[in-house]
Amino acid sequence: MASSVGEPVSVPIQEAKSKRTQNISLFLHKPHDLRYGEKEPPVLKNQFDVLLAINYTGICGSDIHFWEHGGIGAYNVTSPIVLGHESAGTVVQIGSAVKHLRIGDHVALEPCAPCRRCEACLSGHYNLCPDMIFAASPPYDGTLTGFYIAPADFCHKLPDGVSLQEGALIEPLAVAVHIVRQAEVKPGQSVVIMGAGPVGLLCAAVARVFGASMVLSVDIVDSKLEFAKSFAATHTYKSQPISPEANAAEIREIANLPGGADVVIDASGFELSIRTSFFVIRVGGTYVQGGMGKSDITFPIMALCMKEVTAKGSFRYGSGDYKLAIDLVATGRIDVKRLITGTVPFIEALEAFEEVKGGHAIKILIAGPNEKLNSQRGNDIT
Amino acid sequence: MASSVGEPVSVPIQEAKSKRTQNISLFLHKPHDLRYGEKEPPVLKNQFDVLLAINYTGICGSDIHFWEHGGIGAYNVTSPIVLGHESAGTVVQIGSAVKHLRIGDHVALEPCAPCRRCEACLSGHYNLCPDMIFAASPPYDGTLTGFYIAPADFCHKLPDGVSLQEGALIEPLAVAVHIVRQAEVKPGQSVVIMGAGPVGLLCAAVARVFGASMVLSVDIVDSKLEFAKSFAATHTYKSQPISPEANAAEIREIANLPGGADVVIDASGFELSIRTSFFVIRVGGTYVQGGMGKSDITFPIMALCMKEVTAKGSFRYGSGDYKLAIDLVATGRIDVKRLITGTVPFIEALEAFEEVKGGHAIKILIAGPNEKLNSQRGNDIT
Amino acid sequence: MASSVGEPVSVPIQEAKSKRTQNISLFLHKPHDLRYGEKEPPVLKNQFDVLLAINYTGICGSDIHFWEHGGIGAYNVTSPIVLGHESAGTVVQIGSAVKHLRIGDHVALEPCAPCRRCEACLSGHYNLCPDMIFAASPPYDGTLTGFYIAPADFCHKLPDGVSLQEGALIEPLAVAVHIVRQAEVKPGQSVVIMGAGPVGLLCAAVARVFGASMVLSVDIVDSKLEFAKSFAATHTYKSQPISPEANAAEIREIANLPGGADVVIDASGFELSIRTSFFVIRVGGTYVQGGMGKSDITFPIMALCMKEVTAKGSFRYGSGDYKLAIDLVATGRIDVKRLITGTVPFIEALEAFEEVKGGHAIKILIAGPNEKLNSQRGNDIT
Amino acid sequence: MASSVGEPVSVPIQEAKSKRTQNISLFLHKPHDLRYGEKEPPVLKNQFDVLLAINYTGICGSDIHFWEHGGIGAYNVTSPIVLGHESAGTVVQIGSAVKHLRIGDHVALEPCAPCRRCEACLSGHYNLCPDMIFAASPPYDGTLTGFYIAPADFCHKLPDGVSLQEGALIEPLAVAVHIVRQAEVKPGQSVVIMGAGPVGLLCAAVARVFGASMVLSVDIVDSKLEFAKSFAATHTYKSQPISPEANAAEIREIANLPGGADVVIDASGFELSIRTSFFVIRVGGTYVQGGMGKSDITFPIMALCMKEVTAKGSFRYGSGDYKLAIDLVATGRIDVKRLITGTVPFIEALEAFEEVKGGHAIKILIAGPNEKLNSQRGNDIT
Repeated sequence: MASSVGEPVSVPIQEAKSKRTQNISLFLHKPHDLRYGEKEPPVLKNQFDVLLAINYTGICGSDIHFWEHGGIGAYNVTSPIVLGHESAGTVVQIGSAVKHLRIGDHVALEPCAPCRRCEACLSGHYNLCPDMIFAASPPYDGTLTGFYIAPADFCHKLPDGVSLQEGALIEPLAVAVHIVRQAEVKPGQSVVIMGAGPVGLLCAAVARVFGASMVLSVDIVDSKLEFAKSFAATHTYKSQPISPEANAAEIREIANLPGGADVVIDASGFELSIRTSFFVIRVGGTYVQGGMGKSDITFPIMALCMKEVTAKGSFRYGSGDYKLAIDLVATGRIDVKRLITGTVPFIEALEAFEEVKGGHAIKILIAGPNEKLNSQRGNDIT
Repeated sequence: MASSVGEPVSVPIQEAKSKRTQNISLFLHKPHDLRYGEKEPPVLKNQFDVLLAINYTGICGSDIHFWEHGGIGAYNVTSPIVLGHESAGTVVQIGSAVKHLRIGDHVALEPCAPCRRCEACLSGHYNLCPDMIFAASPPYDGTLTGFYIAPADFCHKLPDGVSLQEGALIEPLAVAVHIVRQAEVKPGQSVVIMGAGPVGLLCAAVARVFGASMVLSVDIVDSKLEFAKSFAATHTYKSQPISPEANAAEIREIANLPGGADVVIDASGFELSIRTSFFVIRVGGTYVQGGMGKSDITFPIMALCMKEVTAKGSFRYGSGDYKLAIDLVATGRIDVKRLITGTVPFIEALEAFEEVKGGHAIKILIAGPNEKLNSQRGNDIT
Repeated sequence: MASSVGEPVSVPIQEAKSKRTQNISLFLHKPHDLRYGEKEPPVLKNQFDVLLAINYTGICGSDIHFWEHGGIGAYNVTSPIVLGHESAGTVVQIGSAVKHLRIGDHVALEPCAPCRRCEACLSGHYNLCPDMIFAASPPYDGTLTGFYIAPADFCHKLPDGVSLQEGALIEPLAVAVHIVRQAEVKPGQSVVIMGAGPVGLLCAAVARVFGASMVLSVDIVDSKLEFAKSFAATHTYKSQPISPEANAAEIREIANLPGGADVVIDASGFELSIRTSFFVIRVGGTYVQGGMGKSDITFPIMALCMKEVTAKGSFRYGSGDYKLAIDLVATGRIDVKRLITGTVPFIEALEAFEEVKGGHAIKILIAGPNEKLNSQRGNDIT
Repeated sequence: MASSVGEPVSVPIQEAKSKRTQNISLFLHKPHDLRYGEKEPPVLKNQFDVLLAINYTGICGSDIHFWEHGGIGAYNVTSPIVLGHESAGTVVQIGSAVKHLRIGDHVALEPCAPCRRCEACLSGHYNLCPDMIFAASPPYDGTLTGFYIAPADFCHKLPDGVSLQEGALIEPLAVAVHIVRQAEVKPGQSVVIMGAGPVGLLCAAVARVFGASMVLSVDIVDSKLEFAKSFAATHTYKSQPISPEANAAEIREIANLPGGADVVIDASGFELSIRTSFFVIRVGGTYVQGGMGKSDITFPIMALCMKEVTAKGSFRYGSGDYKLAIDLVATGRIDVKRLITGTVPFIEALEAFEEVKGGHAIKILIAGPNEKLNSQRGNDIT
C-alpha cells in the first residue's frame, strides 16, 4: 500500500535521564538592567527539535549594544528577554524524527529557526526569512539560560577534538564565513579588512583559508593589529587621523597594491572606514559590509558607480556556513581558542559584560548555569 | 513574555462544507495493468497542508513509461500506485498555519514534499532532496484521484484569468522553465532544442521569453516541427538519417551559426540527438540534458573537454519555477492552451493513455473523478 | 615551414575612392565655449583599424555637462577637444587585417579603444581598462567631426533594416544593456527604475526584454512618465516631495510589492532617488547605480547590510553589449526611433545643444558635417 | 592638441648585447622522427613582443603523443615543427611598448598569442580564441629551441625566489589551476581526482589551496598514489579491476562520503575513470574533464541528468591562471620542484623523451640549447 504525501507524524521523544528543574537565565529588562531570573524549563513538543543544555555562550557586541541601548536598529526590547546567542550545548532530549544526533552529543547551536516555507527559505537564503525566530532578537529569548530548544538541523555536531568552548566560537566564525563567502574571495586575491575585533580577525583567517595571498587588517588600536598579524593578517595598517583618500593611499602603498585591493570587507561599521574602503578597492572589486553601525553615512556613490564595484551586505549566516566553520576548526585551519580571553561561570556574567564593554577582551565565554567551572583565562582554555 | 524557539503548533483546520466520500483513483498494478479503484479519502493532519479536489491532470510521458514498463530507472512499481502528477486542483480544506490560500482557490500543484531539513533543501535545491515525496514516484501515490493532500507552499494559486486546464499545464511548463534556467539562456543567444514534444515545445517558448534571438527546434516529425514554428521556434530542422556531425553541419548552416549555438537543450533523450548536440554547440557553450532516455550512450567526451562546454542535467523543478511558469501564462507570454489536444472525463482515462501512447496528441488532460465534463477537443479548451 | 608566434604584419590598406579633405569638427575650448574648427583629417596607419565617415551623433547628457562645466569628475578639458561619442558611421577605408567589414558598410561605433593587454582587458572587462582611449574623454577627441578612426572590432555592422539614425542610438542602448546585465534581471522579476531620461527609458525597455514582469519607472515629470508608459514601463510613479521612506512605501503599494522590488536601477544620479531605492528594494535584491551625479551622498548603508542587497556600479559598456543592442533593434524588440526628438544638420549643432540643455527633448541627433540633410522632427525619423 | 584613437606606434626596440647566432631546435618531422635542426633565429618586429632565450622546457604528455602518433585530435603534423611548450626563459630583447619587463628578467612563458579581437578574446576567454597561435600546435613551432618571440603580456615575470626550473613547471600548474577553477572548488568541499600524473597531482595540490577539506587521488600505480599522498592528497584509492559502480562504492566508503563527492576531476582521460566519476559524484556536484583520451566513450548520461551534475571541459588556461600559479609557488603553497624527476642538457633531449615515454618519471626538464648544465636528478633540483 502506497503512503501519502504530507502524512503527519507523531511526536514520541527520546529523553536523557537528567533533572531539568533549574533554568536560571540572564534577562535584559531595559537598558542597563540585566538580571538573573528563573525561566520555565522548556518542554520539547516537536519531533524535529532537540533540547540542549547550554554549556558556553560568548558575549557578542550586539549583546552589549542591547544592554546599553535596549535595542538595535528595528529590534527593541519591550518586555524582558534572555540575551545570548553564541552557544555550544549538549543534547539532552531528542524529537522522534531526529536522525543525526544522540543524547550527549556536543553541538554548536545555529541560533535560529526559519519558517522553511517562504521564498527566501525555499531558495536557500533562510537567513533572509521574514518570519525568522532568532535567539535574543526580540521577542525571542536567547541562550544565556540553562536549557534551550532548537531544530535539530540547526544543531551542528562537534566532531571529536573540537571542545565545547571552541563550539561557542563557531557562531562568530560562521558570521565571518558568511561575509567572506559574500565577498567571493578567491585564491591569490588581496583582501583588506577594516576592523580587528572578533569578526574582523575571523574574516582575516577565513580569507586566508579561501586562498587570499594578501590580507591586510586595519584598526586604530596597536594591540589589535599585533594580534591580527600573529593570528591571520599578512599586513596591518593603523588608521591615521587623515582623510579617507589619504588613508587609502597609505594602505595601497603598504600593501603594494597600486591598482587597489580585490576585496575590501568592513567589519567595523565606522563611516570613515567605509569611505576609506572605496578608495582602497580596485576597479571591478568587491566590497562587503559586515560591521554594524550608523544607519546613514556619507558615501562615495560615484566611486561605486565608475569603478563598477560590487557592494554587498552580509547578514548573519546561511546554508553551509556552520558546516564550514566547524570544518575549519576541526581540521586545525583556524584556531579559535586564541580568541578566547577568558571563560567565567554563569554567576559572573555581569562582570563579563562589563569587561567586554571595556574593550580589552577579544571574546569572553559565560558557562551555562548548570556547568561546573572556575574562571579560566587565556592559555588555560581547552 | 517572550515566546520560544520551536514552539509546537496546534492543528485546527478550516474546512469546506462538501462531501468527500468518493475517491476513485487510477491505479497501476503492474505493467499494462491500469485500473480504477477506490482509495481511502485522505485526511488533513498537518497545519501546513491543504486538501485539494483534483480538477485536471495531464498525462506525462513518464506515466506512459510506467504503464508500459512498470518503472523508470531506479523507480519500480512493486505495489499498486496511483499515477498522475501534472495537476490543477481546488482547495477544499486548509491547515491552521496556512496563510496564502483560501477554500475555493484554484491552484497549480507542485506535486512534491521535500524534507526541508537536508543540505539540498536548506541550500535551495529541494528538487535534489534525497527524502523527497513525489507524486506517482513509487511508493508514493499520484494525482489521478479525487482528493489529494499537499503542503500549502507547493500549491500555487492561479490568478484570475488562468483556467484550471491551463493550471494542469503549469507542471510541464515548470519543467521547461527549470531546463532553460539550468541553460542560463540570455537575451540575444541562439538556442537549439532537440525534440519537439511537449517539453521541447515549452523549452522553445521559455527560451524566447528569456530573450533568445534564435530558437531552432529539431525533430523527425514534420507536423511537430510545423507546430513548433507556429508556437515558438524561429527555425526548425528535420533530423536526417545521416551522421551526428552531418546533421550538426546542416543545423549550423540553416541557423547561420558558423561558430555554433550558444545553448543546446536535449528534450528528446535520444543518443543521436545528444551526440549531434555536441557538434552543434559553440566553444564555451552550455548544454542541458532535459530528456530522459537510455542510461548509457556513446558520448563525444573530448568535444566537451576541448570546447570547454558546460553540460548540466535538469531534474524536475525547484525554487521559483512554478511562480515563473504561472506568471508566463498569466501575462500571456506563453499560451499553454495550444498544447492541449483534448480533455476527457475521468472515466475515459484508459482511452486517453492509449491516445498519448499512439503519439499523435501533444497533451491530453484527464478531468478529476468529481469533475463534471464532456470531452473537449482542441479549440474548445478554455 | 612552420610560421612563428608574434609575426608582425604589414599595413596595406584598402580605400574608398572619396575625398577626405574636409574635416570640420565641434570643439569645446572651455566651459560654454563650443565652436566649429577644422581638424586634420585622420590617416589610417594600423592594419586592425578602419576609417569612418560619421553620419549621425546623438547628444549625451555628458556632452552637455562638459559644455557647461568643462569636465566630469576626474576628466577635465585642459585643451580643446572634439565632443560627441554616440555615433553611427560609414566605412571609407579599411586596414589590411580587417575581415568582417567592407567599404560602404554602416556601423554603430563603440567609441573606445582598450589596451587589450591589461588584466581588465584579458579578463573580459575592457570597459575597466586603465589605459582606455575613449571618444570625447579628455585628452581624446570625440566624434562630432567628419572622419574618425576606430578599431574595426569596435565598429559593429548594422544589419539591413537598421538605419544610420537608429545606429546612433545603439550607444545609449548599449549603456542600458550593460546596466540591466549588471542588474542580472531575470524573467518574472520586478524592476524599479529611477529616472525616465533616455537611459532610464532604455533600461525599462531592456528590462522587459530580459523578461521582467513588472517595470516601474519613477520620475518627477509627468510627460516623461507618460512616455515611459507608452514605451516600456508597466507602471509609473511620480516622485513626491516626501521622505525616501514615504516615496518607497507609495511605490511598493502601487506596484503591489509588499516585500519590495527584486531589482532597482538608478538612472537619475539624484541622492533622493538613490536613498528611496534602498527602501524600495527587497531583502536580497540587486541595485545598480547607472546614473551619474554628486560624488558623495547620504546613504542608508545599514539597509544595504541588513537586507543583504547587492549594489553594483555600471560603467559604459563591455563585451557583447553592442551586439545585443543591435540585435534588439534589428529584431524589433526595442524601437529606438521613438526616442529621437529630432535630427539636425551639423551646422545647427549649437542650437541642438541648447535644446537638449533645455530638457524638453529626449534625444537629438546631429548629422555629420559631410551629411546632406534638412532638419527632421519626430515622426519623420527613418 | 588632443591625440587620436587608434594612433599607430613606431617599433624601436631595446636589445641585450648578446649574440643570437645559434638557434638549434628539436624538430618533429613525422611520427618517431624527432631530430635536431637549425632554425632561423627569430627577429623582433612588434612593439608589444619580447624575445626570450629559453632556459628550461618540460616534456608534456602531448609532446610524447605527437612524437608517437604525429598528431593529437584535429592537430596533425604535416611539415616539421619544433616541439615543446612548458618553458621558462630570459628576456633578451624588448619591444618599445613593453613596460613591465626588462632585459634579463626571468619569465614563465604562457605559450600562446590569441587574436585579442574575437568574441572569445573580448569576453575574457582567450583560451577559446579560434585564431590562437599556440606553441607546438601545428603549424606553429614550439619552445625546444634557443630563442622564442612572445607577446610581453604572456611572459610572466618570476619573482625573486622562484627559479627558472620552477618557472618551467608553471605551465602544467596553470593547467591544474584552470581545471580547479572550472570545478569551482570551494573551501570545505570533497574533491576526487582521477589520475595521479603531473596534472592530477597538481590538481590535488591546487584543490587544497582552494580550501578542499578532502582530496582523494585515484590511480592504478601504487607509487603514484604514495607520491600523491606525500604531495597533496588526503586520501588515495587504487582502482580495482571491478565495475565503475563498484569502484565508486569503494571510493565513497574510504572517503566517508555516503552522499558522494562535491567535485570530481578527471585528469586521466580513461573511459573507466570517467564512468566511475559519475557514480562517485554527489547529486548537484561538479565534474571537470581535464584529461585527454578517446574521442567517444560509453557515458552514463542519465546519471548526469538525474543527479543534476554540472560537467565542464577544461582547455589549456586563461585569464589569471599563470598569475595565480606563480603566486602559489612564490608563497610556498605548492612545491613544484618535487615533481621534477630530472633536468637534462638539450643534447640529451631524445633520451629524456624516451624516459618520459617509459612512464617512470613525473616531469623531465630539458635545458635550452644555450644553457650550460649537467644532468640533475631529484634532490639536486634548485
